[in-house]
Amino acid sequence: MLADKTVQQITHPNLVNTFSDVEAMRSQLNVEGRFKATFEATKSALDIAILEPINVPFPKDAGGGYTHEVHKNNYKLMYDAGIIYQLTKQQKYADFVRDVLVKYAELYPKLSLHPERKSSNPGKLFWQGLNEAVWLVHTIQAYDAVLPALSAEDRQVIEQGALRPVALFLSEESPNTFNKVHNHGTWATCAVGMTGFVLGEDEWVEKSLYGLDKTGTGGFMRQLDELFSPEGYYNEGPYYQRYALMPFVTFAKAIENNQPERKIFEHRGQVLLKAIEATAQLSYAGLFFPINDAIKDKGIDTIELVHGVAIAYGVTKKAGLLGLAQQQNQIILTGDGLKVAKALDANLAQPYQFKTQLFGDGATGKDGAFAVLRTGSESDSSVVTFKATAQGLGHGHFDKLNLSFYDKGREILSDYGAARFLNVEAKFGGRYLPENETYAKQTVAHNTVVVDEISHFDADTDTGNMNHPEVTFFAESDKATIVSAEISTAYKGVKLARTIALIKDGDSDLILDIFDVESKSEHQYDLPFHYEGHFIQANFKYQPELESLTALGQANGYQHLWLKAQAQPKEGLAKLTWLNDNGRFYTLNTLNEEGGEVLFVTTGANDPDFNLRHDNAFILRVDGKRKHQFVSVIEAHGEYNPSKEYTLDSESLITSIEQQKQGSVNLVIIKRARAEDMILAYQTGSAITQSFVIDGQEYTLTKNIELF
Amino acid sequence: MLADKTVQQITHPNLVNTFSDVEAMRSQLNVEGRFKATFEATKSALDIAILEPINVPFPKDAGGGYTHEVHKNNYKLMYDAGIIYQLTKQQKYADFVRDVLVKYAELYPKLSLHPERKSSNPGKLFWQGLNEAVWLVHTIQAYDAVLPALSAEDRQVIEQGALRPVALFLSEESPNTFNKVHNHGTWATCAVGMTGFVLGEDEWVEKSLYGLDKTGTGGFMRQLDELFSPEGYYNEGPYYQRYALMPFVTFAKAIENNQPERKIFEHRGQVLLKAIEATAQLSYAGLFFPINDAIKDKGIDTIELVHGVAIAYGVTKKAGLLGLAQQQNQIILTGDGLKVAKALDANLAQPYQFKTQLFGDGATGKDGAFAVLRTGSESDSSVVTFKATAQGLGHGHFDKLNLSFYDKGREILSDYGAARFLNVEAKFGGRYLPENETYAKQTVAHNTVVVDEISHFDADTDTGNMNHPEVTFFAESDKATIVSAEISTAYKGVKLARTIALIKDGDSDLILDIFDVESKSEHQYDLPFHYEGHFIQANFKYQPELESLTALGQANGYQHLWLKAQAQPKEGLAKLTWLNDNGRFYTLNTLNEEGGEVLFVTTGANDPDFNLRHDNAFILRVDGKRKHQFVSVIEAHGEYNPSKEYTLDSESLITSIEQQKQGSVNLVIIKRARAEDMILAYQTGSAITQSFVIDGQEYTLTKNIELF
Repeated sequence: MLADKTVQQITHPNLVNTFSDVEAMRSQLNVEGRFKATFEATKSALDIAILEPINVPFPKDAGGGYTHEVHKNNYKLMYDAGIIYQLTKQQKYADFVRDVLVKYAELYPKLSLHPERKSSNPGKLFWQGLNEAVWLVHTIQAYDAVLPALSAEDRQVIEQGALRPVALFLSEESPNTFNKVHNHGTWATCAVGMTGFVLGEDEWVEKSLYGLDKTGTGGFMRQLDELFSPEGYYNEGPYYQRYALMPFVTFAKAIENNQPERKIFEHRGQVLLKAIEATAQLSYAGLFFPINDAIKDKGIDTIELVHGVAIAYGVTKKAGLLGLAQQQNQIILTGDGLKVAKALDANLAQPYQFKTQLFGDGATGKDGAFAVLRTGSESDSSVVTFKATAQGLGHGHFDKLNLSFYDKGREILSDYGAARFLNVEAKFGGRYLPENETYAKQTVAHNTVVVDEISHFDADTDTGNMNHPEVTFFAESDKATIVSAEISTAYKGVKLARTIALIKDGDSDLILDIFDVESKSEHQYDLPFHYEGHFIQANFKYQPELESLTALGQANGYQHLWLKAQAQPKEGLAKLTWLNDNGRFYTLNTLNEEGGEVLFVTTGANDPDFNLRHDNAFILRVDGKRKHQFVSVIEAHGEYNPSKEYTLDSESLITSIEQQKQGSVNLVIIKRARAEDMILAYQTGSAITQSFVIDGQEYTLTKNIELF
Repeated sequence: MLADKTVQQITHPNLVNTFSDVEAMRSQLNVEGRFKATFEATKSALDIAILEPINVPFPKDAGGGYTHEVHKNNYKLMYDAGIIYQLTKQQKYADFVRDVLVKYAELYPKLSLHPERKSSNPGKLFWQGLNEAVWLVHTIQAYDAVLPALSAEDRQVIEQGALRPVALFLSEESPNTFNKVHNHGTWATCAVGMTGFVLGEDEWVEKSLYGLDKTGTGGFMRQLDELFSPEGYYNEGPYYQRYALMPFVTFAKAIENNQPERKIFEHRGQVLLKAIEATAQLSYAGLFFPINDAIKDKGIDTIELVHGVAIAYGVTKKAGLLGLAQQQNQIILTGDGLKVAKALDANLAQPYQFKTQLFGDGATGKDGAFAVLRTGSESDSSVVTFKATAQGLGHGHFDKLNLSFYDKGREILSDYGAARFLNVEAKFGGRYLPENETYAKQTVAHNTVVVDEISHFDADTDTGNMNHPEVTFFAESDKATIVSAEISTAYKGVKLARTIALIKDGDSDLILDIFDVESKSEHQYDLPFHYEGHFIQANFKYQPELESLTALGQANGYQHLWLKAQAQPKEGLAKLTWLNDNGRFYTLNTLNEEGGEVLFVTTGANDPDFNLRHDNAFILRVDGKRKHQFVSVIEAHGEYNPSKEYTLDSESLITSIEQQKQGSVNLVIIKRARAEDMILAYQTGSAITQSFVIDGQEYTLTKNIELF
């Protein structure tokens, strides 16, 4: 009996936390600092929670409903109790996990598929098998932690009644999900693989790594090879990336602890570590870029990335990761969490460096890219994102070559994100709203060209999945970064090509945006700019709708836009100015051609349940054109400070925008009132030395891009 | 010559700062702490600014324009230079003030009235005489500070060319403003009175104190007696109160230093100190309640209140004021500023206590009142405000008995505030927008009853100024506070009476709102609730406008509302739920009678320049009624946490609201799902002991109000 116990103490826990992690953590419980504080807070909360009667209800409700939340709460409590048991060795915590699991062992064999199942991946305890996998990921870690304190009889009951049936349900009985190269598959393989480690089922581990048939066509290794690009970009975008990250880093850490010979963190050029860092990089002012089906409130303090950063720090010891951990302001009770806590206590943190970066998409990194252009390394330096990625599967939006802009802590040119109120029962059961399909995913909901009021790929995800843009140019220098991409498959017979440059010169932040559209037949081309803030003025006359509003169109998102005003500005520089909540003014300066129109729109039409926000956009429109170039400069200027009662530069400074080509040097000359002219010069080939002359003065370009 | 200089050193400065203040400040310049840091920051900024060429342009532009901003900047720089001269005794700072003032002495005699003058109070340097007075308030303090360092010739030039003419312009030549019992008058009397102290013109001081005819019908003392109520409430509301406060506290401090025998801070039961504290109390989460023509960004960190708090601390030494100073996070370079800085450095600050309070309005405090009901003493505890005040002159809104609600840091039931973009030239020259008259001031823009789509007093300010509501009841206890008021003059032949109670019981925050309307003839009664957040659901069917929107009405603000949906809910409890950005759900539960309607509206119709925000409201409507009672409970519930992915209690818990009267005990019984029933009992007479029985159980009320 003693021998058995000793063996158990050595081999459990051994998933994310090892026995030696636990010893290190226990040694810190009386040392003042972040780790001790977190331990005490977790223990206090747990001590209250475990006084409540154990509640393992028969599954009934969908996401956000009562039984759903109770089962979620149960796995979180078990997970905490497992850790607190290891840290305190107080039997009551192990007993709590045991008592809950015994209830699950009674319940689970009685269950058939969940009554509220909706997805192709149904669960039993939960409406989605996904949640069931998350349940097991947490629960198996709790079980691993308390196992040495349980009797053989209890272990038998729990394993036979709950752990094994859940693992089998998630693997053999849900082969499509388990084998799928998709984040639902990763959660399942992580859950089943870790259960394999704990129960000594090597076969389960193998199947988790290489698919049910163990050929590697499915399973964790395939997911690791395909779901992230070489730069660590996840095909569905950062909102899903942080969610997908959790089972990846959790299972990888368990593999590292159990089978270090796999060198899992070295795999594919350290792709997992790159994925963790990419998740952080894909954020602004702490929040993830809200591309695709993203809810805008999610950011780098999300628990998945707290785990990710801790594990990455455990592997790399990079001080910049501590800067992220500081922003996350949350410590986890793991061996790596302890390392982070101790390093933060010792003031070892360095500011995390946010970078201008091109994130290739797809397994090879060649399926287009997501470009992030930044004016500085702080989390709230100005940022332009340019979405030249692949479709991003079912959660992807039809927004090829989309531009977003962030400045002084806020969205300026925005992405609607997802139309969804997560877990709010009254809002379509908390699921993606119908308007997510009819508006948020549609092209017109984005800042990119719509041809003939039809969305890219005619809003067909399968077509989208088969096509992607090509990035044709990317360069950066001191004061300017630039990226170009094009796609000929978003519309049959129409080529879209866009070049975007972010310019930072002293206090001036400008975006140059050149959008070329080309076709052999005539079309209507719309370029919307969805802006955040209050409209201030236009430098042209417009016809506002005063007494009534009507919807702009019939379909493809246009049916959700109220037309508030329209204008036919004169040829030349048309200006639209708005004021953001950050106290800065922004002007869209665009070169208007004869016949060009500007529409002012607001979301909210054909929205019977008032599911949409009231967001504003300007739409630049040309009709009956084969070829068209939209040339715009988005300019940040001035300051509105009603608190201190001053207003500076509320008027745009730009007086002209001119393009030239000299040799293979592209030139954009921006003239401004009360400020120096700007000359942006770039060459898309290799960086050779070329001269050009403007207003009689000679300049020399030696790099790919330079601001003069 | 030496004797003369010595006398000057003793008697200058002697306005807000005295010679002994300066000595105290100088002794701290080498002591690490807030004062030294502020001194150094101010000096550094000034050192850069005084390198620029002196710029005293010929007046041309209105508020926000170039010359306007330059002249504002000049007085700020002179003010700083005066202080820094006193602290450093470096001649260059005195020279700077001299050089600027010599330019003004050259310019001023050439000026006639400002070309852009608009108001009844024109200026010469500025479009408004008000700004001219503010110029002199700052400039005379700068002059007082540097006077000992100036030659007699320079003094002669400056006094004759600038200071005396400006003082005379503001007094003898602008008698209406100078004698007016209004904040413009206070700025003028403060400017002229302080100039009188510095130039030894006792007559100017007397006129400033008692009006040009020195009878006391005008002047500072009259302003002090009439512009604040006994509780320190300023008739125009907190946005103007903080602005009006500045000349009051500045001149009072100068009077205290020059004529301590007046005991100015003791005057009228310390009304100035009460006014300073009232300004702070009239705020939520750091921002002033946006009643009347208020810009919503102004708050307790406004420089006027920084001066006010410092002066009040100098007089009272109350540690709670340091708590405010801490929130203001700004130190001023005055004797009182030094006291605040040293006390903060010594960690003497205590949290400032925000209170439930009835602020009587008018000189006697009997012209109605502004009620502030709070659930706690923190700056962001839940707050209900109830506006039963007098009109508040030209900046007053037609919003008798208006309700506002603030919770968890945000506006929940909101006031539009002013329609204005301060100093934004493109927005109507930065002045109040036309929509301020046509919408923001109108009754329908508020949360109070509109009869027959006409605003209170038919939107006539003069009529409004002659009438005010009466507060009929006010009581507080542990868990509930209550206030009632009524008015029969807002509409001819219609009496409006409203009772509002704020209830706090554990995590539950509720507002009871009973609005009685009574007339001998039939009318349409509308009760709008302007809510902040996203609509979630109604518990009744409504008819949304899908393809087009039309304006709700023709006039009185109704022309600015888009009608988005309408409903005729069944008799009984109608519920409307929204989600605020603070992550909490709110439900308006209202008892609907047969024939009652609910309209969903959004601002923005008939707004050709897009000056209005898009704010949402529900309007409860009954038509063809003599007498009606709107009974509602606004309920805060649940939590939406998309970051941590949980949603709690998104559905309202209230199942019924019932009113009873037993003896003279008013009873409101609120039943809730999964929570205890609430019984609110109150008696409006004196607090006698009375029993009542509900569901067979006997209760005893001993106070005016109690929650059971």
